[in-house]
Amino acid sequence: MAVTNRDMANAVRALSMDAVEAAKSGHVGLPLGMADAATVLFRKFLKYDPANPAWPDRDRFVLSAGHGSMLIYSLLHLTGYKSVSRDDIRNFRQLGANTPGHPENFVTAGVETTTGPLGQGIATAVGMAIAERHLNARFGDDLVNHKTYVIAGDGCLMEGISQEAITLAGHLKLNRLIVLFDDNQVTIDGNIGLSDNTAQCARFEASGWATRKVDGHDEKDIASALKWAQNQKKPTFLAVKTIIGYGAPKLAGTGKAHGGPYGPEEIAGIRENIGWPHEPFEVPAAIEDAWAKAGTRGKPDHDAWKKRLAASPQKGEFNAAIAGSLPKNLGKAIIKHKQAVAAGGETKATRQWSGAALEVITGLVPEMVGGSADLTGSNNTQTSHTTALTPTSWGGRYIHYGVREHAMAAAMNGMALHGGIIPYSGTFLVFADYSRAAIRIGALMGTRVIHVMTHDSIGLGEDGPTHQPVEQVASLRAMPNMHVFRPADGVETAECWELALENEDGPAVMALTRQGVKPARTTHTDENLCAKGGYVLSDCKGKAQAVIIATGSEVEVALAAQDQLAKDGVKTRVVSMPCMELFEAQDAKYQQATLGGDVPRVAVEAGVRFGWDRWIGHDGGFVGMTGFGASAPAKELFKHFGITADAVAAAVKARV
Amino acid sequence: MAVTNRDMANAVRALSMDAVEAAKSGHVGLPLGMADAATVLFRKFLKYDPANPAWPDRDRFVLSAGHGSMLIYSLLHLTGYKSVSRDDIRNFRQLGANTPGHPENFVTAGVETTTGPLGQGIATAVGMAIAERHLNARFGDDLVNHKTYVIAGDGCLMEGISQEAITLAGHLKLNRLIVLFDDNQVTIDGNIGLSDNTAQCARFEASGWATRKVDGHDEKDIASALKWAQNQKKPTFLAVKTIIGYGAPKLAGTGKAHGGPYGPEEIAGIRENIGWPHEPFEVPAAIEDAWAKAGTRGKPDHDAWKKRLAASPQKGEFNAAIAGSLPKNLGKAIIKHKQAVAAGGETKATRQWSGAALEVITGLVPEMVGGSADLTGSNNTQTSHTTALTPTSWGGRYIHYGVREHAMAAAMNGMALHGGIIPYSGTFLVFADYSRAAIRIGALMGTRVIHVMTHDSIGLGEDGPTHQPVEQVASLRAMPNMHVFRPADGVETAECWELALENEDGPAVMALTRQGVKPARTTHTDENLCAKGGYVLSDCKGKAQAVIIATGSEVEVALAAQDQLAKDGVKTRVVSMPCMELFEAQDAKYQQATLGGDVPRVAVEAGVRFGWDRWIGHDGGFVGMTGFGASAPAKELFKHFGITADAVAAAVKARV
Repeated sequence: MAVTNRDMANAVRALSMDAVEAAKSGHVGLPLGMADAATVLFRKFLKYDPANPAWPDRDRFVLSAGHGSMLIYSLLHLTGYKSVSRDDIRNFRQLGANTPGHPENFVTAGVETTTGPLGQGIATAVGMAIAERHLNARFGDDLVNHKTYVIAGDGCLMEGISQEAITLAGHLKLNRLIVLFDDNQVTIDGNIGLSDNTAQCARFEASGWATRKVDGHDEKDIASALKWAQNQKKPTFLAVKTIIGYGAPKLAGTGKAHGGPYGPEEIAGIRENIGWPHEPFEVPAAIEDAWAKAGTRGKPDHDAWKKRLAASPQKGEFNAAIAGSLPKNLGKAIIKHKQAVAAGGETKATRQWSGAALEVITGLVPEMVGGSADLTGSNNTQTSHTTALTPTSWGGRYIHYGVREHAMAAAMNGMALHGGIIPYSGTFLVFADYSRAAIRIGALMGTRVIHVMTHDSIGLGEDGPTHQPVEQVASLRAMPNMHVFRPADGVETAECWELALENEDGPAVMALTRQGVKPARTTHTDENLCAKGGYVLSDCKGKAQAVIIATGSEVEVALAAQDQLAKDGVKTRVVSMPCMELFEAQDAKYQQATLGGDVPRVAVEAGVRFGWDRWIGHDGGFVGMTGFGASAPAKELFKHFGITADAVAAAVKARV
Repeated sequence: MAVTNRDMANAVRALSMDAVEAAKSGHVGLPLGMADAATVLFRKFLKYDPANPAWPDRDRFVLSAGHGSMLIYSLLHLTGYKSVSRDDIRNFRQLGANTPGHPENFVTAGVETTTGPLGQGIATAVGMAIAERHLNARFGDDLVNHKTYVIAGDGCLMEGISQEAITLAGHLKLNRLIVLFDDNQVTIDGNIGLSDNTAQCARFEASGWATRKVDGHDEKDIASALKWAQNQKKPTFLAVKTIIGYGAPKLAGTGKAHGGPYGPEEIAGIRENIGWPHEPFEVPAAIEDAWAKAGTRGKPDHDAWKKRLAASPQKGEFNAAIAGSLPKNLGKAIIKHKQAVAAGGETKATRQWSGAALEVITGLVPEMVGGSADLTGSNNTQTSHTTALTPTSWGGRYIHYGVREHAMAAAMNGMALHGGIIPYSGTFLVFADYSRAAIRIGALMGTRVIHVMTHDSIGLGEDGPTHQPVEQVASLRAMPNMHVFRPADGVETAECWELALENEDGPAVMALTRQGVKPARTTHTDENLCAKGGYVLSDCKGKAQAVIIATGSEVEVALAAQDQLAKDGVKTRVVSMPCMELFEAQDAKYQQATLGGDVPRVAVEAGVRFGWDRWIGHDGGFVGMTGFGASAPAKELFKHFGITADAVAAAVKARV
């Protein structure tokens, strides 16, 4: 008897429900509902090679509704990915298994991105689809010619980030992006009508998508829709009508089908209803074979691709781009740039210095693709090497993201995960709050994405407290695997850019000033002094009576205080600390030596104290903000809030 | 000669451009473009009384495109609000003036909410419109019968939060909400086509809005559209076509018209083009008079309303609701509840204890309107007193917000600002990252909104690191004017709820466990021990050799460690610190006495150390997380990450 699509889908259903029952937690509603559609996709459309999950020209599959993780684990397992064994499925959601509660790309080969927080997947997929079109423009159809498929649920589509993502994708005409919406009309709280009445197809059409409704339990309708989707000149949205918890006697089609183990009775009922008499975790050999065969479908494609690559004159360039390695001459170019900056002695905003560093870097690193959330002129993120990436010019290297901070951050994650691109983008630092959920997933996944965030304190002046970050630097420092750089001048800005690029395993935030800052580093060093996070910038003769620690624009304040204090006979040392995380990573000896041992310390930073006690102690001095800012010219604000050399000097004197 | 709408609009234009020129910063593009429409609105439709900006039944006007703040300042000034004098306008964006860069409701009477971060205004307005319909259901047309008007720009509509807000508004059929979209086709980076191609009317229609296109420079068309909007049974979206920087010879209609002073030549050109020969900041008397007359239009309405209120049997109840005062019997009811909880000695999750506290509180405080972002069963936010608020039952007290954390937080701000409602809502703590920008504006404005955030650590278990907060508590503690509560058991949860409600001047986050916690407080006290933020929960006999500080679920761990250590002859004290901010607000004497003076300290919290050094010192012990979590059952995770009594005991022993 021939194995049908339905038989194969039922294997996905069975493994998914058995795993959730064994784990006593998880979400089986989606795998039961979407199994038919996903089976068609993995059998007939998706281009992949389980033996080589990292094949650069594979299609990307993103399960944006990440709670339905057993769907992807079942598919990876059945198609032959070694990353998901039957034991991993038996040990779903257990410590050490390759089958965590939500899909994690850094745990399970074959998972393209980490999902779970809703809407992230679809927005990350937009980044992957941008990367594909961009690299296609650079390397041609022979090397880059694939699609990005997404399964998204109601929750993904309700999250605001999805709107940012779909309007960006529609604008850029990303025709290789195909979204399958699990249109099951149910959320956790109950029927979708309890909280939403959006006509999703109409919504997507309004932003330039092709849309079509599909019966999610009709193999032919699914295949026909996917075939149709291949040839659209727009991104495609398929509203795949399904029954959540398909097959469950009592729960199917209800809010309770979303998650949690269904219990033995319902599971027995599903087995009965879908005609699956087999034991838990057991799949008949014929069905296993059919799946294994489906998993080999991509190998000839992959082999042909390898031949094309081998023969391509762009082979070396392509491999370097995918590896994400930096050109060897970059280090020297940065040194040369630093030398010129140190010699120039100019007063400029660090956002301008960042633009100058980017001019050097983007000239040498063709993988750098920049952008801004509609603040290009303010963020200084566009350079002479980065023309606009548009629907008629996907090869451009600068994305006008629009006022979409959240999707921008997620799309950057997607580009980095896709490979071949080192993404950076710009917005105001205070708007890190808009994109924080995507920044976090980047930190969790360890993607190299660089968030340029300018206007980093009350120094932005008149725009007032809604635009003045006071707690953002602290809140970002609190995030694991994140590097927050707050450079003091042009030299430090170049050094911090270098450090951000060299760290391949995590994101960075560049917190930069709107206002001009005096140069702090006027003597050139080849060495990247920022690499240790904090270092002695200006010492006194003999032992310091106190140490002043500062970051960014307040280094200037610290140096002025040091001068004042010297005149009053108080010897101090100034430590610049552009990256607290890198300083924390040094050994205790270096930390102590830098911070001058057991002397009073005063920190100055135009933000909140939170987090600083680690370096200055409970009784240390802190000159900064204690609440929100105000609207006025920057210079007046620094006076008004008492972030001045006088205040620093007074804080030192009170302690020596 | 009769004063025309155009004359009056030109007064708005002139004051706006003169103010921006004087400040040398600000955004005049929107005031120049939207002056005609706004003038029609303030002359003929908006219900307001400048002499009484707090009149509860006034229409609300929200400038969601807050950068165009001079529009609202000009309107408030011309219509007679005392909060904006001509001098305030001359001193636009200067320290101490009532005219900050972006509109701030806590600075300027007549400004309904603080805007600037894009999309917040429209989402906050949705909350105001919910509040209006809800209070109308409670108090009837005589007392509550008004509209909410919004001016939003392209940027607002590109932000994801706007999608969450409009889908929620469409779902709830908020027909008193009218959005005027400043459809000027220009963003900062250039023409809108550079980043977006969305058909906005179609998008809004897809979510149940009535829409209409309007010529924003045609007084009659504007009036006709606003009249039409009054009678829709849906929220209304008017796409008001305007020319940004209207009148400016070179800049009008370009990206450069968005912001910044235009310079003397352009300004002279505008004066010429709009026929405004007057000196800067000068408005001819006839036009001033016409505006002053427009400003008195609402007084008869207000007087009639006052009479209706005076005659209403609901007068006292209405005034109490608007004042936001808590019922006098609430304190006693909470004490009674605490007594029962302490006596019961049950092990439950604090999210369940929160549900129990809410059962008591919502029964006594009819102003409490709750909800959840599609996690009602998990957040325990719905009680027997709060039935669903739906389009056919606006009087309900429970909102199924859908998966829309960001709009939920903003809508809560809007309800609190509207008055008559004390909003609370629920989601998982990790998703504070989705709503952070709205939470922050609430903190800045000082709105009393309570964010119930459950599943507050790795204790949530199998859902894994995407769902496990490790840095969220720290990141929220970093925010000014925010109270983060992390109670340890049922008694503390009740106390923290009381504290959150009593603090009328700012938001609170309730960080609550998914997993059960043993009771920490088994002896009843009438006194709210959490009020000081941290207190001695369990002391030793004689002087403690070390102090263990803990919050939430880790209080149980601390108490177990204390027991272990006692057996080994090490005397320790356990301090519970459910609210670091309230502890920080105590005097040094209390802090020192509680923390046991100069003894070693160890903190235990299932989150990052960031911020804790303030209380434990650089060399203090910390038992918590150093990175992201993992997917596994909760108990295994606490072992895996070493958050155990053994680890706390070892950290103490290493220091005594």
